[in-house]
Amino acid sequence: MTERLDAQMSFLTEACRLKSITRGTTLCDGSRYENSGEHSWHIALYALTLAEHAPDDVDIHRVISMLLLHDLVEIDAGDAPVFGDHDPTEIAAKEQAAADRIFGLLPLDQATRFRALWDEFEANATPDAQFAKSLDRFQPPNQNLASGGGSWVTYRATYERFESRVGSKIARGAPTLWAWLKPRAVDWFKTNR
Amino acid sequence: MTERLDAQMSFLTEACRLKSITRGTTLCDGSRYENSGEHSWHIALYALTLAEHAPDDVDIHRVISMLLLHDLVEIDAGDAPVFGDHDPTEIAAKEQAAADRIFGLLPLDQATRFRALWDEFEANATPDAQFAKSLDRFQPPNQNLASGGGSWVTYRATYERFESRVGSKIARGAPTLWAWLKPRAVDWFKTNR
Ligand SMILES: [Ca+2]
Repeated sequence: MTERLDAQMSFLTEACRLKSITRGTTLCDGSRYENSGEHSWHIALYALTLAEHAPDDVDIHRVISMLLLHDLVEIDAGDAPVFGDHDPTEIAAKEQAAADRIFGLLPLDQATRFRALWDEFEANATPDAQFAKSLDRFQPPNQNLASGGGSWVTYRATYERFESRVGSKIARGAPTLWAWLKPRAVDWFKTNR
Repeated sequence: MTERLDAQMSFLTEACRLKSITRGTTLCDGSRYENSGEHSWHIALYALTLAEHAPDDVDIHRVISMLLLHDLVEIDAGDAPVFGDHDPTEIAAKEQAAADRIFGLLPLDQATRFRALWDEFEANATPDAQFAKSLDRFQPPNQNLASGGGSWVTYRATYERFESRVGSKIARGAPTLWAWLKPRAVDWFKTNR
């Protein structure tokens, strides 16, 4: 039992480093860039609060578990801002290696369970993963609207790029949330672009 | 439906401010003070990872929900570091007013549910609340051990004060975790005090 707990505590202490991974989005008040630790909390709270807008077959507790784990690979692989230009193959390889190392700190049975949740999130094929992924995409535009533009300004985003890279993914897992956000985003881009 | 979602989004945008509330504990690498948003993520991850060490009658998903919500009142009331000197009556009054305002942003049925979870956490009387409270107390000493002392140094804590203010609360809801931490804390205070 002590060996299990030792391994779990190594994982939890390693996880602390996610608080030092900087994202492309600022806080709602624009005061600084957000980190991936606080972002993970915020979208888990989104899930808890917006559960009623998920499709019927979604298990919100599995979604929250996925969201708590989803960004840990960034400790090694960094955050790839959605409007940036990245080589997706290279990022995927880095993230796979990161998942091996970081989940590998846990006792084997638990490493396997957490890794399966992360794999499911990444594959974006089940209703739970699709709702989780939608929330991950839904939060940053709301922070941009609150802060006066945020990463839309930094990356000179266009509405078309936003709809294809972000909107389409929100719509896939959470059509109600996209219906709410879309007119607000359209307005912002009309006024500011 | 849109009115409900409007209210939920106001709540979620207000919640963003928790990322700007500074705690008395530093990150594991000591590089800066931790904020209450990233702290909330970290202890929700503690809950997910350490669920097997909870007493049998604990519902870990309720614990995670409590932990996601537990610090929101700090947006108005601030964080009261555990080794600091505070007037508990004054803090409690501020936190009650904060809970009224912040959960009050939500649709009434949801405000009532979230508030009940927060009240349960604060009352620390059910097994779920006691395990949640134990994790909230268990994470900071681990960050202190990782960073070389952290808030134990800042607040010139003694082992006796640590055991009475922190250890006793960990032991109450999570005896296994206290058994793991205690010898490590004893060692640290022996070496550094
Ligand atoms: Ca607190």
